[in-house]
Amino acid sequence: MKITMAHGSGGKTSAELMSSVFGKHFKNSVLDKMEDAAVLEISGKIAFSTDSFVVTPLEFKGGDIGKLCVCGTVNDLLMMGAQPKYLTCGFILEEGLDVDTLDRIVSSMAAQAKAAGVTIVAGDTKVVEGSGGLYINTSGIGVIPAGRDVSAANCEPGDQILLSGTLGDHHACILSARMEIENNIKSDCGCLSDITDALFSADIDVKTMRDVTRGGLGTILNEIADTSGCRIELAEESIPVNEEVRGFADILGLDPLYMGNEGKMVAVVPAEQAQQALELMQKTEHGKDAAIIGQVTEGSGTFITTRLGASRVVDVLYGEGLPRIC
Amino acid sequence: MKITMAHGSGGKTSAELMSSVFGKHFKNSVLDKMEDAAVLEISGKIAFSTDSFVVTPLEFKGGDIGKLCVCGTVNDLLMMGAQPKYLTCGFILEEGLDVDTLDRIVSSMAAQAKAAGVTIVAGDTKVVEGSGGLYINTSGIGVIPAGRDVSAANCEPGDQILLSGTLGDHHACILSARMEIENNIKSDCGCLSDITDALFSADIDVKTMRDVTRGGLGTILNEIADTSGCRIELAEESIPVNEEVRGFADILGLDPLYMGNEGKMVAVVPAEQAQQALELMQKTEHGKDAAIIGQVTEGSGTFITTRLGASRVVDVLYGEGLPRIC
Repeated sequence: MKITMAHGSGGKTSAELMSSVFGKHFKNSVLDKMEDAAVLEISGKIAFSTDSFVVTPLEFKGGDIGKLCVCGTVNDLLMMGAQPKYLTCGFILEEGLDVDTLDRIVSSMAAQAKAAGVTIVAGDTKVVEGSGGLYINTSGIGVIPAGRDVSAANCEPGDQILLSGTLGDHHACILSARMEIENNIKSDCGCLSDITDALFSADIDVKTMRDVTRGGLGTILNEIADTSGCRIELAEESIPVNEEVRGFADILGLDPLYMGNEGKMVAVVPAEQAQQALELMQKTEHGKDAAIIGQVTEGSGTFITTRLGASRVVDVLYGEGLPRIC
Repeated sequence: MKITMAHGSGGKTSAELMSSVFGKHFKNSVLDKMEDAAVLEISGKIAFSTDSFVVTPLEFKGGDIGKLCVCGTVNDLLMMGAQPKYLTCGFILEEGLDVDTLDRIVSSMAAQAKAAGVTIVAGDTKVVEGSGGLYINTSGIGVIPAGRDVSAANCEPGDQILLSGTLGDHHACILSARMEIENNIKSDCGCLSDITDALFSADIDVKTMRDVTRGGLGTILNEIADTSGCRIELAEESIPVNEEVRGFADILGLDPLYMGNEGKMVAVVPAEQAQQALELMQKTEHGKDAAIIGQVTEGSGTFITTRLGASRVVDVLYGEGLPRIC
């Protein structure tokens, strides 16, 4: 069966799609009430975030748009030191989308939400003309435990910068799929709560965290340097890149510093806790390839010391990058 | 200037669009921090809602997609008895969208958010191939004051049903624009807080509220009847419809009961407060044409007594309705 404009009517056909796909996978006591908004009890400091996902193809090695949208919003909340609790999801379906494909993606969202400990409490579905595509918006609420203050403004000279793993996997995976290149590269799409839990449980004084998505590490570090009013210095040889991804990037002239990722983060911690934080990260599933990649110093901008010993500026991403990577 | 794929890169061109359009209109202390998520203090019972908007044309008589998306999410929160506080917005821009058009729409969102007393605290922008279109997702949080319990499950036999104004204006406006028919019909797109404030300030025991959007009054009342386990009986002659909209609907064979609205609501209240509630509504800007249109009785389903005295079933909307009405 294919999606038709009638699935967006708000009438009988919409309701049938609701129960046969969304209701089936997302069933929970809040959503089942079918009200205009979810009613929740919450208290204290919260994080509130939104992201739309337009990735093509919809399914790829290591994930799909459903897993991606849950992980993306969960990671945004985690990066503020929050414990993710509730998600909403807004679906924009293109006419002609295969309902079986939608069912697999919604099932994948439900599984990832369960694994991440978040409940999907409200949703919306619209249908537009098109050729079987799908966009998903996820918005999320997380609770920030008392005493946590994680912000891109908190870095200070002397702090060390940790990267949770290899760069460029998601980017190379999506591009391989579009170019129909056969290889073993799979997306790193994943929820980073194992890493954040490990750091906070050990009382690491995490100053700043950011997931390294669209724009790549280069862009994200520039934003952190700007916001904190500091300089960031990287050592190229310390930045982990999977061998196959490196080969792929070299052939296409891509720089891993600007390749998108969907399960990688940077954490900035005080120098004296850096080694401990690294070991904690490396013991987690999503942080096993973690490395200390640089430090925060006085000044401004982001710089990298190359393998040949030269220092060069790392600017933000120019140009269009890889369209529809997330 | 037109939107290009580079505006979705997450790099320099994205950042420029961010500051020149979104930053300019949405400027506030939370958003200016440019973190992965907004950090907010909140306490108690909240409502959390999401909606995506795909209306075409983007601008129409009485509003635009920007005004519509703020009002739509604000109204969903209001219908749960909440005071809307915070919104996020996720933009999906099609390549070729005119940046001046985007600027007007974002400006309209900002003005409507200010009028509704909500702050836009987080956002996201993606770019997809296409022909200059635009989709917006808005998610919102509102705070529900202690003691309020508004739910589609609360109706009881004897309760009266109020409709806040004329049916079909938004639907007829959008359809007129697409058909390039010249008339005076304008969308009713608006925030319903004047009505909800008036009812709650006067301690009206509001059982159920719903905004009458996609699917129309017929569909919404069926959902309420189902959820409450009651029967709803309407009197056709009491349902307000603007004369010009009625003429338009008659020519096209449209039934106002299934036409979409963007600034109309039903409220179900105890019989003894119905007259007072009606007068309160009629004193507001958005409720000036309010009417008592029916009552809740024992049984199930929704029925209408026609002008000729016959009773017929009001079913939910079948078919595709008007595509991309909101």
